[in-house]
Amino acid sequence: MSDASQIRKVHIVGTGLIGTSIGLALTSAGVEVTLSDRNDPALDIAISRGAGRALRDDDEPELVVVAVPPRSVALAAAQLLEQFTEATVTDVASVKSRPIRQLRDLSEHADRFVGGHPMAGRETSGPAAARADLFEDRLWVITADPSNSAKRVADVEWLAAMCGSVVVALAPDAHDRAVALTSHTPQLLATILSAQLADADAADVAVSGQGLRDATRLAAGDPDLWSDILVANSTEVVAIILRVQQQLEVVANALAAESTDGQEVAARPVLALFEKGNLGQSRLPDKHGGAAHLYETVPVVVSDQPGELARLFAAAGAAGVNLEDVRIEHTVGRQTAIVELAVTPEAVNLLRQAVKEGGWRVRG
Amino acid sequence: MSDASQIRKVHIVGTGLIGTSIGLALTSAGVEVTLSDRNDPALDIAISRGAGRALRDDDEPELVVVAVPPRSVALAAAQLLEQFTEATVTDVASVKSRPIRQLRDLSEHADRFVGGHPMAGRETSGPAAARADLFEDRLWVITADPSNSAKRVADVEWLAAMCGSVVVALAPDAHDRAVALTSHTPQLLATILSAQLADADAADVAVSGQGLRDATRLAAGDPDLWSDILVANSTEVVAIILRVQQQLEVVANALAAESTDGQEVAARPVLALFEKGNLGQSRLPDKHGGAAHLYETVPVVVSDQPGELARLFAAAGAAGVNLEDVRIEHTVGRQTAIVELAVTPEAVNLLRQAVKEGGWRVRG
Repeated sequence: MSDASQIRKVHIVGTGLIGTSIGLALTSAGVEVTLSDRNDPALDIAISRGAGRALRDDDEPELVVVAVPPRSVALAAAQLLEQFTEATVTDVASVKSRPIRQLRDLSEHADRFVGGHPMAGRETSGPAAARADLFEDRLWVITADPSNSAKRVADVEWLAAMCGSVVVALAPDAHDRAVALTSHTPQLLATILSAQLADADAADVAVSGQGLRDATRLAAGDPDLWSDILVANSTEVVAIILRVQQQLEVVANALAAESTDGQEVAARPVLALFEKGNLGQSRLPDKHGGAAHLYETVPVVVSDQPGELARLFAAAGAAGVNLEDVRIEHTVGRQTAIVELAVTPEAVNLLRQAVKEGGWRVRG
Repeated sequence: MSDASQIRKVHIVGTGLIGTSIGLALTSAGVEVTLSDRNDPALDIAISRGAGRALRDDDEPELVVVAVPPRSVALAAAQLLEQFTEATVTDVASVKSRPIRQLRDLSEHADRFVGGHPMAGRETSGPAAARADLFEDRLWVITADPSNSAKRVADVEWLAAMCGSVVVALAPDAHDRAVALTSHTPQLLATILSAQLADADAADVAVSGQGLRDATRLAAGDPDLWSDILVANSTEVVAIILRVQQQLEVVANALAAESTDGQEVAARPVLALFEKGNLGQSRLPDKHGGAAHLYETVPVVVSDQPGELARLFAAAGAAGVNLEDVRIEHTVGRQTAIVELAVTPEAVNLLRQAVKEGGWRVRG
């Protein structure tokens, strides 16, 4: 698909984490990259890291990447379509429909704009955190439009391929609906859950385990970026918030009714919700694109010493076992950890044997 | 603390995951354990696994463990206090205040009852999934009461110690408030988030990553048990649901107002919430009991082959680097994974060097 594009010059507007990472990926592949940013220090850092050089008046990029926050995409893209009359323009924002709609109102050249969304989240931001391989093996959604020529779409596919990403084609509204469900609402709920911890007694927070850490991990994200994303995708996010509110209402009413109707009756709608949660959770894709829950977990007790994990993984590798996932669980005040090794069901016995022969204890 | 107790005979009522695991821990330490369960097949499995023997009419246990669902704890405990006139009685339920209140109404012998909560969750249930070391290195909350003698409390501390747990003393209502915040509400929100996935298009669910997997992991829990827990702790859970609803309302209103008031104004309350989420998330304890975020992450690209992780961990171990945490991130359709190694800031350079010398690529 990207064979059609022979791009030598790319201009990137916005030298934050995403823009600078794209610059690093392209320059390392020999592409000529120019950079601009309203923020001079950010631009200087990006240039000093080798992500490209400053734009000159006579530069004529073939592809322009708008790497600015969602709320600024449409205006920036309209100006760039005007400035570079031959270039394909794309963006990297996490929301697609609204910026594209706004752009159509602002520019007659929107047919040269092809929306893109490289899906690589990090809990850091800024050009100093950029990496040439940030997008490697990640999904890069391209939201082409009937007005886009095949050449324009191929230019953006080339960009995704140069960054090592896996291209997924979606309509803008399908993209926004999907990420509202799989990214924006999870971000919001993890944040609301974490916000409860902000006001809580330290003693209450202390009684917490791995489950809470997992459930709140997303809440470490950048507040500026995330509030911008939610505002830009407000329609889709509000639709899911309404459904979440309805379900909270059902649970709250059931729990409040319990004192009059008895525990068995109260539990019914709560039970139904938990069953639905089981079902939804089982639909998440695993690394091979199939349903989750295909792996079994072997929990191993290891001491908290350098080299212990190495010995354990060496034992698994020597037995020919491929580890699909690893989780380490610690307890406050103890010097041992439980390492949960996820493997295919066929590998469980091999792994258990290897672990025992290596002198560790398998739990259970 | 547990030196005071010299217990030789323990009776366990309820041979599910928790009761059977306690039985296995005690029998493996040479304690005489008797078991009972209304469900004969579950009792048979627990006995066949070595968790204890069936109760006889002349048995006189010194300690009785009520390992039944929260809604059944008070009635079961009242009967057992009557049946065994000298025994200390404890339970293992995730909710403490209501069962203890109910028990005081039902029994004159509630002073011999000391509530307990071993905090070891698993996504499985039943005696077949039981493990002698299920509670090892986990917190075991003991909710003693002014009416309990020191001897009764010491008996339950002895039980926790025999199971390898770390004892935490809390008042029943402090316990229930803490777990409503750190366990029951996270469980509910992860479940509501997962429930959205149950009805979604498969194509929408496919655009998901590690963040969603983490945020929904808890939703795989047992619906029967969890609806029972929420009902039993309804007052504390409803109080937090109300706060969550208020925050969802603030966000929904801000996002809806955005079309009239403009994006900047709309983003303000959403931004404030995300900032509070950052703060709350940073309060979670890490393994050493301090605040989280003390580690830095080194992301390494590894091929999806047996032995690769082993080689990587061996390299880290050989360099004297202690890995604090590990996460593996996969992409659908790719045969490489990103392994994120969390280490103390001082160890970052050592680890990076070891990784590069081993022939892997560190991201960024």
